[in-house]
Amino acid sequence: MTETKNPARRIRLGMVGGGQGAFIGAVHRIAARLDDRYELVAGALSSKPDIARASAAELFIAPDRSYDSFADMAKQEAAREDGIDACAIVTPNHLHFPAAMAMLDAGIHVICDKPLCLNVEEAELLAAKVRETGLLFALTHNYTAYPMVREARQMVRDGKLGDIRLVQVEYPQGWMATRVEDTDNKQAHWRADPAKAGMGGALGDIGTHAHNLADFVTGLEISELCADIDAIVPGRKLDDNVQILLRYDNGARGMLWASQVAIGHENGLRLRVYGDKGGIEWAQEHPNHLHFRPLDGRPELMTRGGAGIGSAGLRGVRVPPGHPEGYLEGFANLYTDFADQLIARITNGKADPASMLIPGINEGVKGMKFVEAVVRSSQRGAVWVSF
Amino acid sequence: MTETKNPARRIRLGMVGGGQGAFIGAVHRIAARLDDRYELVAGALSSKPDIARASAAELFIAPDRSYDSFADMAKQEAAREDGIDACAIVTPNHLHFPAAMAMLDAGIHVICDKPLCLNVEEAELLAAKVRETGLLFALTHNYTAYPMVREARQMVRDGKLGDIRLVQVEYPQGWMATRVEDTDNKQAHWRADPAKAGMGGALGDIGTHAHNLADFVTGLEISELCADIDAIVPGRKLDDNVQILLRYDNGARGMLWASQVAIGHENGLRLRVYGDKGGIEWAQEHPNHLHFRPLDGRPELMTRGGAGIGSAGLRGVRVPPGHPEGYLEGFANLYTDFADQLIARITNGKADPASMLIPGINEGVKGMKFVEAVVRSSQRGAVWVSF
Amino acid sequence: MTETKNPARRIRLGMVGGGQGAFIGAVHRIAARLDDRYELVAGALSSKPDIARASAAELFIAPDRSYDSFADMAKQEAAREDGIDACAIVTPNHLHFPAAMAMLDAGIHVICDKPLCLNVEEAELLAAKVRETGLLFALTHNYTAYPMVREARQMVRDGKLGDIRLVQVEYPQGWMATRVEDTDNKQAHWRADPAKAGMGGALGDIGTHAHNLADFVTGLEISELCADIDAIVPGRKLDDNVQILLRYDNGARGMLWASQVAIGHENGLRLRVYGDKGGIEWAQEHPNHLHFRPLDGRPELMTRGGAGIGSAGLRGVRVPPGHPEGYLEGFANLYTDFADQLIARITNGKADPASMLIPGINEGVKGMKFVEAVVRSSQRGAVWVSF
Amino acid sequence: MTETKNPARRIRLGMVGGGQGAFIGAVHRIAARLDDRYELVAGALSSKPDIARASAAELFIAPDRSYDSFADMAKQEAAREDGIDACAIVTPNHLHFPAAMAMLDAGIHVICDKPLCLNVEEAELLAAKVRETGLLFALTHNYTAYPMVREARQMVRDGKLGDIRLVQVEYPQGWMATRVEDTDNKQAHWRADPAKAGMGGALGDIGTHAHNLADFVTGLEISELCADIDAIVPGRKLDDNVQILLRYDNGARGMLWASQVAIGHENGLRLRVYGDKGGIEWAQEHPNHLHFRPLDGRPELMTRGGAGIGSAGLRGVRVPPGHPEGYLEGFANLYTDFADQLIARITNGKADPASMLIPGINEGVKGMKFVEAVVRSSQRGAVWVSF
Repeated sequence: MTETKNPARRIRLGMVGGGQGAFIGAVHRIAARLDDRYELVAGALSSKPDIARASAAELFIAPDRSYDSFADMAKQEAAREDGIDACAIVTPNHLHFPAAMAMLDAGIHVICDKPLCLNVEEAELLAAKVRETGLLFALTHNYTAYPMVREARQMVRDGKLGDIRLVQVEYPQGWMATRVEDTDNKQAHWRADPAKAGMGGALGDIGTHAHNLADFVTGLEISELCADIDAIVPGRKLDDNVQILLRYDNGARGMLWASQVAIGHENGLRLRVYGDKGGIEWAQEHPNHLHFRPLDGRPELMTRGGAGIGSAGLRGVRVPPGHPEGYLEGFANLYTDFADQLIARITNGKADPASMLIPGINEGVKGMKFVEAVVRSSQRGAVWVSF
Repeated sequence: MTETKNPARRIRLGMVGGGQGAFIGAVHRIAARLDDRYELVAGALSSKPDIARASAAELFIAPDRSYDSFADMAKQEAAREDGIDACAIVTPNHLHFPAAMAMLDAGIHVICDKPLCLNVEEAELLAAKVRETGLLFALTHNYTAYPMVREARQMVRDGKLGDIRLVQVEYPQGWMATRVEDTDNKQAHWRADPAKAGMGGALGDIGTHAHNLADFVTGLEISELCADIDAIVPGRKLDDNVQILLRYDNGARGMLWASQVAIGHENGLRLRVYGDKGGIEWAQEHPNHLHFRPLDGRPELMTRGGAGIGSAGLRGVRVPPGHPEGYLEGFANLYTDFADQLIARITNGKADPASMLIPGINEGVKGMKFVEAVVRSSQRGAVWVSF
Repeated sequence: MTETKNPARRIRLGMVGGGQGAFIGAVHRIAARLDDRYELVAGALSSKPDIARASAAELFIAPDRSYDSFADMAKQEAAREDGIDACAIVTPNHLHFPAAMAMLDAGIHVICDKPLCLNVEEAELLAAKVRETGLLFALTHNYTAYPMVREARQMVRDGKLGDIRLVQVEYPQGWMATRVEDTDNKQAHWRADPAKAGMGGALGDIGTHAHNLADFVTGLEISELCADIDAIVPGRKLDDNVQILLRYDNGARGMLWASQVAIGHENGLRLRVYGDKGGIEWAQEHPNHLHFRPLDGRPELMTRGGAGIGSAGLRGVRVPPGHPEGYLEGFANLYTDFADQLIARITNGKADPASMLIPGINEGVKGMKFVEAVVRSSQRGAVWVSF
Repeated sequence: MTETKNPARRIRLGMVGGGQGAFIGAVHRIAARLDDRYELVAGALSSKPDIARASAAELFIAPDRSYDSFADMAKQEAAREDGIDACAIVTPNHLHFPAAMAMLDAGIHVICDKPLCLNVEEAELLAAKVRETGLLFALTHNYTAYPMVREARQMVRDGKLGDIRLVQVEYPQGWMATRVEDTDNKQAHWRADPAKAGMGGALGDIGTHAHNLADFVTGLEISELCADIDAIVPGRKLDDNVQILLRYDNGARGMLWASQVAIGHENGLRLRVYGDKGGIEWAQEHPNHLHFRPLDGRPELMTRGGAGIGSAGLRGVRVPPGHPEGYLEGFANLYTDFADQLIARITNGKADPASMLIPGINEGVKGMKFVEAVVRSSQRGAVWVSF
């Protein structure tokens, strides 16, 4: 269990996008809070000023640091003594480029959601700017930050798999199997719109994750590829199914499949890598497990924090083996539900009845009675006792 | 995705225990931060004053609100205008009772780790105090706060399983299969010491979780039990294996097994409940899944946030289906690693090399090149293109 | 792959029970045929003479060796030069005793389905008779004959698990969760009738399997037990749920659960054994896998015929690793469907249309075209070719 | 449970190949015996006469019906009144064509192992001969004969998946990850030799199975394919890794991967098919399960013989749900081990000690004592009783 040591002060964070109704912005905020190294102090949370302001208030951002545009935020924060150190960009794809440029120009470090931008031209302009300014830039290919993925990468580097021969990576989802972009599904709208998503649909949204994950773990470079991408759902403007044959620079072969019309899959990112000494498999939906299959040995289950995990895989581990990542969220649910009760009490309001699900003093008394009854039964020779 | 709306201000939280080297204290703090409803402002983090102070500093607690004893903290915080609203108690079991009493006496709400205390007598004194003061009291039986556990409970209430007939609950762990209490394992020390853990070893530590989980989901009351508990490891002072036959008030039968010497199990809490219309199964190590097996139907896989989940199961869900709880931790790893880089930059220090694992601008450019190459290959008729 | 060497002649087998409509009799016959060491030459297949005769005809048994009673069969077969060597007894439980006694008295070896008989008294009479006659007697506790179960037993003997501490065995089924004995379900009728099944319901039917499996693998003896058995379904005459705490002679503890009202389970026999050096788990529904979890090591997946399997686990293996037991049945389906076509052709009858599902010459041509197209595409540089 | 009704007489079967040391020949023989519709009466079991004769003797084939060549067998059997009805061809690939032609020319029906032959030219000659003679011809693509595969096919036909959009089929194995063809591995020798295997290595051996399975279930025709096949292991003469992009005539897309160098996979044939109404998944290593994932519904587990299985999936089912295919082999192990004892007794030989693992009268007595102890404990109020 590591709650990492805190620095002298928290990093001051700004955010572009992520106002009410957004998905990934909230994820970024929780991620920033988890280890208590950031405080969110400024935001251009929406292009609609009233939504921006209301969202900021909910997030304890001071009114004067809620901005109507990212350009204003960059300029004004750069001018403050206590201005933001870094800015998270969590908008649809097409705004990544201008927002990131504005921050870099203002001397602010950037955390940007993926994919980086709309095309290679924008990407190279950004790369030049990062080099020129010397600022830090993080791209949230979050799947590379699971402990067992980092362990997998280290195993490849340590030669545990030998020379890599085959890469199989897939990322099936099913949620766009129908014309969800014609419904009020906000996530689908921009993803299916070339003006906002760029030239790739499933390709940009999840194909880039699959590509990045395989790159990260194997350390190989693709030398050639042959791709067949299609809009399977009639009338869709961007691809929703991606099939690629890969050839790597060391001669290895690979296949990549990404789909948003594979009904029944929720978020099925899965990587398999095979070398001449062994193979590994990791699936995002069970991220605490890494399967290692050595040549001539038995398949081994490697677990986060479990037997024989090296330093790469131990970094970023917060809970013990067998407590799945997610244990923290369960714990947080208790705290949050209890907060509802407390707030109701403090404000003379009414607690949400659902918050009453959290265990309290009665459950505690009952637990003690249970312990005593068990001990009593066992001490008397394991006989029945009433409870 | 729900990042719940924030109240007008954050709840002011104190903590007893949880200083450097502790496990569950850090879990409580992360849980409190996750939804941004609490701020940790005071602590009696260790019985050793210097550790208490050093721990407080790391947690951004003001020096004058780091206390040498919980008694002092209760008294002084109660006297402040901006004193703590609530206090988390995360000490070994034997201190739960005095610390909780001190807080309740001072008019402070309590969040207490389980088990409640050392015996029924203490438990009933606490219960009386809670009734008398009217204060709120939460006991962190955290396994009941997983969305799919709450969904399971609601299914039982809604009659989806019919009349409950059988309960099978087990909680095997293997980490105490040897004399770990003779090593420097701090977690094992107090758990194997009757003076600190109380009359139950595995019974109090994990048996109470199993008991509480079955209670929570089924809503049944145990009427009789027959228990055989043992210290399997020679020389151990408290039980490490618990086997119980259960009889419920409605005539249902049950079995409970909790063990800390079942080698190979990490944290294998698992509940199965069978009624006359169907059965369910939930396992803590895969908490996003609930298996429902209806009479005469096919087994169904229920997923957190997935098809047909009711309001009970949707509460406390932060990420979409298929993004396991744990997705947030992966994301947080990126933020934390990036913070290492930022802090190094801000302080002219050196970044931890491992923090360089996070994707940056180069990965972004490469991703864009990948998208363009894929589109180019596909547009030319799915032919090979160099990359 | 071992198709064991055949002896000079096949063993001549008789059968008591197993006429039209029976379940376990057909299983015994297939089992006897699989390795080609038996030929079924005589039978008292039903207590109803016409059914006995019709059943015998279908099984290619000569009319003069189809008997109306097991007593007749025992007497007349014993008198023949080419009389049966051994007899399989596959009746409901209450006939096991008299049929086995008749065979033993006639000098015929016995293969008897489980449980042995109705009570300990009958059992000991049979045991005395076996001793006295020196004849061979097999009881078909079939679950002990899976290769991975035998491997598990050997691992215990070889000390791979160290001293055994805990045994967890369970056998949940759900098919008797309603009053199936009131329907025309022939299997349920006699199992729910104390006159035919004996004093145990689920206990005799599947509890004895669970008991035998744990015995077989661990080699331990139960010294004491505490059992709670119930007829959960209202009005049922015999138990349908069995819960037992066990104490073994070496001090180990155990639990046994057998149920026929656990909705959603088909045939969930599962054994877990824990020693001071490691634990194992085997589940009948995935019989080719054995999970081994060593102290301080990573969990290993042991597969039938796979890496590191010893001679105990290799005996009785017919197909390579990864070809599940069941591969043979799939193969047999092709042969049987093809037989339907052949028989139709030979007899000028009409083939069952379903037999047309088997692949034939067209599939063969298509397969060759596929191979050639693939090679053509690849040889041209991995380009698209029409098919 | 269906042990299908037998015809008036068994089919008389011959076999080409399958002598001592062969693998697939023994599988064919077991498959033929399982439902008791065939008797093996003739064979040209090896090209080496002495091995042919010794093999025939072990299989109870009369000496005058053991032939030195398939040509002799075809001619002489065709001339006999009681000649073979059908012949199984289980040689390496290169002999399939001449042996099949010889049988067809002699008026004998053919069961041929896959792949059909060495190339399309041979395939079309065979197809012409089958048409011309009107004889029956079965190709043992055995994976299509699993009940759940047939159920899957029927589901596609019944529109349960809607219009098919995507096909993902893979067949990874790892056993040829090293130069096994340089060892004494007989299976590897001919598979790695173009003269015996044909133009495809992994392609012909397992790629054709994958192709056939996808065809069988979907009923779609491939219109175009783009393939990248390689010999990954240095010095290997035939491909050991196959990667293919597929386009189907209805517009569906597909990917096929077959590999014999994917370390850690035993026999990983797996098919996933997605339509606009749902998806299915089947894996050969767990053949009793079919996963069905309907649009907007919960994933369902379909089990062989379980809830809602139609006539397609019920055909060829021999054991109840939850008794995996493989149950029969476990049962057969008991019969075979018992046969060892019986034969030893009959011939005054010594039984193989391993045959003593089968349960006998002592286990039966113990089982009865167990039942009585359990009932006694329970009747006395569920108290401890000695055993």
